Amino acid sequence: MNTDQSNQEAYRRITESQPVLSDIKYAREVFPSLGPRHLLHAGPPIEWEKMCGPLQAAIAGALIFEEEAADEKEARAMAANGRVKFAPCHSMGAVGPMTGIISRNMPLFEVLCRTSGRRVYSTINEGLGKVMRFGANDSEVIRHQKWLAGVLAPALKKALHHRPIDLRQIMAQALAMGDEMHQRNVAASSLFLRSIAPGLVGAAIEPDNLAGVVDFIAGNEQFFLNLAMAASKVMADAAADIPGSTVVTAMARNGTNFGIKVSCLGDRWFTAPVETPEGLFFPGYSQEDANPDMGDSSITETVGLGGVAMAASPAVVAFVGAGKARDAEAITFEMMEIAVGQSPHLRIPSLDFAGVPTGIDVRRVVETGILPVINTGIAHHKPGVGQVGAGVVHPPMACFVAALEALVERGASQ
Amino acid sequence: MNTDQSNQEAYRRITESQPVLSDIKYAREVFPSLGPRHLLHAGPPIEWEKMCGPLQAAIAGALIFEEEAADEKEARAMAANGRVKFAPCHSMGAVGPMTGIISRNMPLFEVLCRTSGRRVYSTINEGLGKVMRFGANDSEVIRHQKWLAGVLAPALKKALHHRPIDLRQIMAQALAMGDEMHQRNVAASSLFLRSIAPGLVGAAIEPDNLAGVVDFIAGNEQFFLNLAMAASKVMADAAADIPGSTVVTAMARNGTNFGIKVSCLGDRWFTAPVETPEGLFFPGYSQEDANPDMGDSSITETVGLGGVAMAASPAVVAFVGAGKARDAEAITFEMMEIAVGQSPHLRIPSLDFAGVPTGIDVRRVVETGILPVINTGIAHHKPGVGQVGAGVVHPPMACFVAALEALVERGASQ
Repeated sequence: MNTDQSNQEAYRRITESQPVLSDIKYAREVFPSLGPRHLLHAGPPIEWEKMCGPLQAAIAGALIFEEEAADEKEARAMAANGRVKFAPCHSMGAVGPMTGIISRNMPLFEVLCRTSGRRVYSTINEGLGKVMRFGANDSEVIRHQKWLAGVLAPALKKALHHRPIDLRQIMAQALAMGDEMHQRNVAASSLFLRSIAPGLVGAAIEPDNLAGVVDFIAGNEQFFLNLAMAASKVMADAAADIPGSTVVTAMARNGTNFGIKVSCLGDRWFTAPVETPEGLFFPGYSQEDANPDMGDSSITETVGLGGVAMAASPAVVAFVGAGKARDAEAITFEMMEIAVGQSPHLRIPSLDFAGVPTGIDVRRVVETGILPVINTGIAHHKPGVGQVGAGVVHPPMACFVAALEALVERGASQ
Repeated sequence: MNTDQSNQEAYRRITESQPVLSDIKYAREVFPSLGPRHLLHAGPPIEWEKMCGPLQAAIAGALIFEEEAADEKEARAMAANGRVKFAPCHSMGAVGPMTGIISRNMPLFEVLCRTSGRRVYSTINEGLGKVMRFGANDSEVIRHQKWLAGVLAPALKKALHHRPIDLRQIMAQALAMGDEMHQRNVAASSLFLRSIAPGLVGAAIEPDNLAGVVDFIAGNEQFFLNLAMAASKVMADAAADIPGSTVVTAMARNGTNFGIKVSCLGDRWFTAPVETPEGLFFPGYSQEDANPDMGDSSITETVGLGGVAMAASPAVVAFVGAGKARDAEAITFEMMEIAVGQSPHLRIPSLDFAGVPTGIDVRRVVETGILPVINTGIAHHKPGVGQVGAGVVHPPMACFVAALEALVERGASQ
């Protein structure tokens, strides 16, 4: 196979992937090697000293949640003294938004690809406000994490009861309902609740807990984000390790560096300093409050959703300050220039059901100078403040150039 | 006030109307004058002999449901012998889709306009398939009607528990999610379930009933249609009886005639023979199976939703066979020519949040020759077959011409 053929194969595998929510599991069950002081984080690998404020604070929170540290001071000392082990979520087949922390007693969505049998994991969305993924770590945040682990996760597991929920179908419907599934998940979250509600009410869950769970899901318009991320991850992974393929299989940020992976180059990260998103800010905040770009959520763009599917979401264009409806269409058309093809399943009604651009080709990015567009929440650079806006950001071109150089060395490029 | 000022006032009242779902009540409670052999139907007034097949059959079904007749034969004889009284739903401040039958023991949505304090009613959507609104009347249909009245309605009433659900907010969100709220209500139905689910699970409903209710709502993508209709009715009624106003306050069909009402002309119907919708048919059916146009659901178009808001719904354009996304935009832009203004609340993202065309002016319809566009389900002309397709239909121009003539007589026209 030449590179184009290899990329066609990558494109085929992404589009034929059929992600379903198969189960809820604790990290300790699926990652037996994950010790009590071993934490997963968003983006490419990074040492404690180089982490941004929100990431360090979220790590302290996770150590408190795991009862490895009594307070933030103890947790920080522990991490600074090399007594905590860190690895990217991606290295374990997982993804997490913003700081993306996963520790062993956290509950995870298990997403199964029906085509390949591959399983991946993501955290469960914590809701908005003061949450760990933005670096909050006070007692209220820890209590909420314990509720997610102790009440929400068992309820969802019972509701699923080995009847998987078809995520591709929800994503296809939600795209027709104005979600791009990164910054807007209101339709997908509603459709997900509609899918799981019959299971929840039929699952003999203690009434107060049931009411709490339904309230929580019904009140969280971004609940589906983490499911979209895991679904995107399992789709992208389907395209990994194809000899000769120059298709991007991961894009992720840790608040310091942006990293990408490329199909034929396996697990190697190509990194560069991350940019800071530009966009619109909530009242009282401005660009100078913005933390540099962070999170595994750009896995959605990796498979053609999020900013790449901007045309599906005129409401998001306004939210992230990227112009008008026609500007959104122009973005998606531009993304087609760097993609191998268009999804036959994930389609955009306002483009007369054209499929989302799928399979970003490293070569085309460098040749055209067109970078993927990422829609993103913007965190405050101070831990615990939370989300202060939403905007658009690009990966650094240096990641793609470094990957292309590696491809040239490997002789994979034509 | 001159006519333009009167129409501005009508437009203002429609757009300022704030419909909420306030309660569930039985028809006998809200219409004490509705006797056991007194039935409400969709569209303008009509006698038994002139009714189409599905309407006669639905009437037979309602008489069986009310236990006034033992079987269809007895019911038909009763109706044919003048022992059943008929009136339009609209005459009682109510609406019903397709045949639109309301009998005294049927449960109704009560929709309150927070601005005016006015209350209107609609039936609860029965789901798809073999249902009374398409003229089915066998024992399974009657059993399902009894379940709606005996299980679903009390559960919804408990779930609401005097906490009204804001329908305008759901409609505004759903428009941004690809619904036009006549042929597509998937977003609105999901958002409605999300709104009522916490109330349902917190309402101490018997577990089997709760599971049945959640299953039913979750499995019915048109569940919201009847709510959209009642909300539209209360909005349109806000514009009724304004001296000098030429704004249309109702459009409705009974399968034989199409009728419209006009603000300054009060309760008078202007009718003409109804047309047969053209569109796309489900496998095995074709245009010759189509029943002439039927139902009060065109109340949605009366306030700017449905076919008038086609641009919001590229998915519907394909479903009703009306072209591509750009064609949908063209339809909504054309509707602006016959409308007084655009809604400040109900907006279409793909038109850069332009509001839906609101307040159809009889004068402009006749002057421009542009008829409102109605999206509609297509019933089989044989009772009990149900929906066989979906398409587009126009009101007959004769209704608008007759109304204009009456306006000229009244001196309301300029």
